[in-house]
Amino acid sequence: MGLKVHGDISSPFVKIVIMTLDEKNEDFELVFGGLSSLKTEEFTAKNPFGLMPAFEDGDLVLFESRAIARYVEAKFEGQGTALLGTNIREHALVNVWNDVESQTFYPSIWPICREFYSKKVPDVSVIEASREKLEKVLDIYETQLSKRKYLAGDFFSFADLFHIPVLHFLQCLSDDTFRSVINSRPHVYKWHQDITSRPSWKKIISEPKASDWSYIPKV
Amino acid sequence: MGLKVHGDISSPFVKIVIMTLDEKNEDFELVFGGLSSLKTEEFTAKNPFGLMPAFEDGDLVLFESRAIARYVEAKFEGQGTALLGTNIREHALVNVWNDVESQTFYPSIWPICREFYSKKVPDVSVIEASREKLEKVLDIYETQLSKRKYLAGDFFSFADLFHIPVLHFLQCLSDDTFRSVINSRPHVYKWHQDITSRPSWKKIISEPKASDWSYIPKV
Repeated sequence: MGLKVHGDISSPFVKIVIMTLDEKNEDFELVFGGLSSLKTEEFTAKNPFGLMPAFEDGDLVLFESRAIARYVEAKFEGQGTALLGTNIREHALVNVWNDVESQTFYPSIWPICREFYSKKVPDVSVIEASREKLEKVLDIYETQLSKRKYLAGDFFSFADLFHIPVLHFLQCLSDDTFRSVINSRPHVYKWHQDITSRPSWKKIISEPKASDWSYIPKV
Repeated sequence: MGLKVHGDISSPFVKIVIMTLDEKNEDFELVFGGLSSLKTEEFTAKNPFGLMPAFEDGDLVLFESRAIARYVEAKFEGQGTALLGTNIREHALVNVWNDVESQTFYPSIWPICREFYSKKVPDVSVIEASREKLEKVLDIYETQLSKRKYLAGDFFSFADLFHIPVLHFLQCLSDDTFRSVINSRPHVYKWHQDITSRPSWKKIISEPKASDWSYIPKV
């Protein structure tokens, strides 16, 4: 029985799982019954929060994109890219920057995406407050990336991968936030060019549905 | 050279690390130079965000409480409580509920704590909006805990531990949010009674400084 990812490729959280599977050279089936399916009993049995993605490996059912990605890494350890690093010290540093992503980077960038994608009239004060937080986080990234090629060290890992899909959301806006925050920081810019040139990412954005931004989860 | 935790025990994030070390039966040194020390170069070399805790194990320097906790679990695997479970399947389920805690529970409870602890006049609209989100999360916890003793299964893990210090913050308020959201849900109540009766937690709250809430990080 193969691996199943439930969700639409337009979701940045589904992209995290798909990119991880590709980095581990694993095939999977992508299953999506439309937005209305997320609130059905069949789906909430897989993810009680009714959000994509959900994931199945036989009778093991998981949700939360980063947790699914960790499971894929653990199950296929030694195959494809070592996304948590290769020893306890590297694991620890990857986990530090994973938590910076989920606790500081993501809460500063996501409100900007949400305002633009889910509201007819974005709230400028929300965007400005978030942008200010995002600039501060990226100043710290700039320093970190002046000393190391990737966030956790000189190896590509989850610490980098988890940033890509949400940054892509921002990059697709007509607003200049992306250009201003990424392109104005030379080391962050170089890092972003590097991590988005990976075949696993290029494959995702070449998918026909990748330009469909109709879905944005309520948070 | 022993383990060093930098920070004050009044911080819920420092408590996560200390409780983890105690569950793993590991001694450590708690070092804190006062709030003003967090912005010094000496401290930001350990955590560039200038927030507690930071952690040292010889020349390995870490920050982010959950990442530090994961490192402690990995380094002392097979000793004390297995805080990520004991096999790949349990690890996966613990990671799912860790991410529910950090991505859904924490962002709904923390604004309530912040309003009460850091503002002279708490903003009632922020509190009510967060409380509504928190109620929804805890409804899902109630269902989950009606089927399993702990969030990730029938074993105590990080998925439970990471909730304790912030819930304690809420419990110490004179406001009735804690009573209303925890005590009104029988399975959540029983779970909370269970996890807060662990010796590792009792030891922390019996510390003389544990009632000093003067510190709350800006978020």
